[in-house]
Amino acid sequence: MEAAFAEAEAAAARGEVPIGAVVAMDGRVLSRAGNRTRELNDPTAHAEILAIREACALLASERLPQADLYVTLEPCPMCAAAISFSRIRRLYFGAADEKGGAVVSGGRYFHQPTCHHAPEIYAGISETKSADMLRTFFKERR
Amino acid sequence: MEAAFAEAEAAAARGEVPIGAVVAMDGRVLSRAGNRTRELNDPTAHAEILAIREACALLASERLPQADLYVTLEPCPMCAAAISFSRIRRLYFGAADEKGGAVVSGGRYFHQPTCHHAPEIYAGISETKSADMLRTFFKERR
Repeated sequence: MEAAFAEAEAAAARGEVPIGAVVAMDGRVLSRAGNRTRELNDPTAHAEILAIREACALLASERLPQADLYVTLEPCPMCAAAISFSRIRRLYFGAADEKGGAVVSGGRYFHQPTCHHAPEIYAGISETKSADMLRTFFKERR
Repeated sequence: MEAAFAEAEAAAARGEVPIGAVVAMDGRVLSRAGNRTRELNDPTAHAEILAIREACALLASERLPQADLYVTLEPCPMCAAAISFSRIRRLYFGAADEKGGAVVSGGRYFHQPTCHHAPEIYAGISETKSADMLRTFFKERR
């Protein structure tokens, strides 16, 4: 989770929304990423998507059933579905995102009958740090 | 929509689930793609995601407010959220996808309070053709 926070900080330094994600397996980091939607002009370049794509490329597989994802904020529906499709084993995330989340907020994707794989979910990891980081970022931009 | 079906057919020929998508603006095709999840070992490489990413790269923008998306099947939650984030103006799709869709099925993402932009939606375009194509593909693989 510390590496995910480092990625979130690096994203903020690039002017991106400060969210970071790490895919880990067998005790080692497979991939790590922060948001790059602005830099890449890519609305799908959320931290989770970039980290999942990189881990899949590394393993030459579209599935990561032995891997866990650490992310500093509750994933949105796009990322929640990508987590499901990639068969991630465990999801650890920081603060809940009432405005845009899809795990404990909104459509709660992993509870939908249209969701065919749900990871084990561990919510609220360092949630104060996660929420503070976002709050500070948006306050400074106003 | 015809170009989207051609992409779906090309995807089937590559052994991918036959779904195709096209992003159009001002009467011309900006980008077109079929599913490539297997080929690319990328669970996010749905037709819609690939077409949106390519159109954004072309316009050097993470938003496509003047563009419309044509897709042969109801988008999943990942693609529905990407459509929302990219501010696509209109969404035209073929058959509904009760098992995995997120527009008229499942969490109906565009109706969630966590969805901040919904396109105009035109459903059921050539839906018989769309459903038949998928049925044939999965029957042949069994």
